[in-house]
Amino acid sequence: MSTLHARIAASFGAQGLMQTLGATLSLVEEGEVHIELPFSAHLSQQHGYVHAGAVTSVVDSACGYAALTRAAPGQEIVTAEFKINFLRPALGERFVAVGQVQSAGKLLTVCTGEVRAFRAGEAGYKIVAMMQATMVSVAAAR
Amino acid sequence: MSTLHARIAASFGAQGLMQTLGATLSLVEEGEVHIELPFSAHLSQQHGYVHAGAVTSVVDSACGYAALTRAAPGQEIVTAEFKINFLRPALGERFVAVGQVQSAGKLLTVCTGEVRAFRAGEAGYKIVAMMQATMVSVAAAR
Amino acid sequence: MSTLHARIAASFGAQGLMQTLGATLSLVEEGEVHIELPFSAHLSQQHGYVHAGAVTSVVDSACGYAALTRAAPGQEIVTAEFKINFLRPALGERFVAVGQVQSAGKLLTVCTGEVRAFRAGEAGYKIVAMMQATMVSVAAAR
Amino acid sequence: MSTLHARIAASFGAQGLMQTLGATLSLVEEGEVHIELPFSAHLSQQHGYVHAGAVTSVVDSACGYAALTRAAPGQEIVTAEFKINFLRPALGERFVAVGQVQSAGKLLTVCTGEVRAFRAGEAGYKIVAMMQATMVSVAAAR
Repeated sequence: MSTLHARIAASFGAQGLMQTLGATLSLVEEGEVHIELPFSAHLSQQHGYVHAGAVTSVVDSACGYAALTRAAPGQEIVTAEFKINFLRPALGERFVAVGQVQSAGKLLTVCTGEVRAFRAGEAGYKIVAMMQATMVSVAAAR
Repeated sequence: MSTLHARIAASFGAQGLMQTLGATLSLVEEGEVHIELPFSAHLSQQHGYVHAGAVTSVVDSACGYAALTRAAPGQEIVTAEFKINFLRPALGERFVAVGQVQSAGKLLTVCTGEVRAFRAGEAGYKIVAMMQATMVSVAAAR
Repeated sequence: MSTLHARIAASFGAQGLMQTLGATLSLVEEGEVHIELPFSAHLSQQHGYVHAGAVTSVVDSACGYAALTRAAPGQEIVTAEFKINFLRPALGERFVAVGQVQSAGKLLTVCTGEVRAFRAGEAGYKIVAMMQATMVSVAAAR
Repeated sequence: MSTLHARIAASFGAQGLMQTLGATLSLVEEGEVHIELPFSAHLSQQHGYVHAGAVTSVVDSACGYAALTRAAPGQEIVTAEFKINFLRPALGERFVAVGQVQSAGKLLTVCTGEVRAFRAGEAGYKIVAMMQATMVSVAAAR
C-alpha cells in the first residue's frame, strides 16, 4: 500500500457512515479514488433500489478523497457543495463510485464523479449517477 | 394522522436507508415535509461530525416527500437531480431536514431544502446545508 | 446614494455585459441586490422568450453583488459556481433578478437568487428562475 | 451541411442572444455541439474578462443543441436546470463551448459542457468552465 493509499485509508476508516453503508475503498491514485458499495436492503428506497442518498454518500466521499490525493501536506478537504444527476434507478449487485479531480487550486478543487452499477449476469456496467463537486482545502485539525 | 401523512409514512417506512440512518418523519403538510435525524457516531465523517452524505440523504428524502404531497394520485416521485451547499460542519445532537415545494409542474417539481442543526444547551438552530432539487413525477409502480 | 451603493454601482458600470444586455442596478442593501432587465428581442432564445443565458447572467451578477455588500474591505467577489432551475418560460416585459446572501464566510459566501417576471397588465410577478450560488472572496486587484 | 446541422442552425439563427453575444455555431454532430465566442469588451465583467454570464449562455446553448441532436422528431429542448463551475478567469481571444449528451431519455437528457479558452500565442486551450445540465423534451410549438 502506497503512502498515499495509507493516508486515504486512515481517513476512510474513521468515517462511521462508510462502515454503516458497507462501503470499501477500492482504488487510490493521484487524482482518482474508487469506493465500492455492495447492494444491501438496508440501503434501499421505497422500491428496493439503492437510495439516492447512499449513492450520493459514496460518490461524495470518492470525490473528496480524490481531492485529498492532490492536497498539500497538512491540508484536509471539506465538501463545499455538489450537484448530482440520477440517470436511472440504482439497480445492481454492486456499485463503484469514481471520483476524479478536474481542476486543483490552492483553495478550491473541482471534481467529477460517477456511480457505476454492476448487475449480476451482465457484462460491463451502467452509470447511475453523475456528480460535479467543489471541494475546499482547510488546514488539518490537530 | 391525515391521509396525506399516512401515504407519506407508508413510503417512508419502506425506505431501508432511512431506518439505517435512524431518521424519522416528523411533519407532513401540503408542500412541506420534515425528517428528523438524531446524531449517531455511525453517521460520522472522519472528524466525528455527521457525514455530508447522511445530511444529504435526509434532505433529499424530505424534498422528495414534499413533492409527493403535491403529486397527482397514482404518481410517484423520483429525484432527477439536486445541488447542495454545506454551510458549516454538521455538528449537533439532532438535525431536522426541511423540504419545501417551490414550483410544482405536471412533470417536474422544484424543491428547496435545508438541514437545521440543534445543539445541546443552545437556543434555536443553525442551518448546516441548503439544497435545490428537481423531482420528476412518474406513474406509480403497481 | 450610500457608500455601499456607490461601490457596487462602480463595479456594475464596468461590466460590459450588463450594458450589452440593457440591465440596470435597481436596489443595493446589506446582503441583497436587485438588477432589472427590460425585455428586448436581442436577448431572445428561438421562441422569442428571454434566453436562459440572459436570465442567468443578471441573477449571477445580483448574487455576486449581494456577496460583495458583505465582503471585507479590499476583497472582491468571484463566482465559484452556481446552479439554476428554470421554472417557466421567461416571458415578460421586464425582469427583476434578486440576489441574497444566505451565509457569509471569510472565504465562501452562499447566495440564493430568483428572477421575477413582470407581465404587462398583470399584478404581481412570476418567478421564472431560482439560483443557488457559491461566491469566493479574493484580494482586490489594484 | 447535414439535415441535422441545418435543423440546429435554423434554431440557433433565431436566438437573438447568440447574435448579441457574437456567438457562432461551429460543430454539430450526433450528441455534440460546439459554439464559438470571440472575445469582445461588450461581454466583460468588471476586470475585463468575459463575464460568467456570457460563458454560461454559450455552454447552455451548446448543451441544449447537443440534446436536440438526439431528440425525437417533433420534439424541442428546454433547459430545466444546470450547474456550472468556473475554474479560472475567462481570459482569451476566443472561446469554444462544447456540449455533449451523457444520457438521453424520452423526457430528460443529461448533458455535460465545457468552455475552452484559446489565448493568443499559446498552443492548446484551458478549460474555464464545466457544466452539468438537465434538458427536458417538449412537443414543438407549431
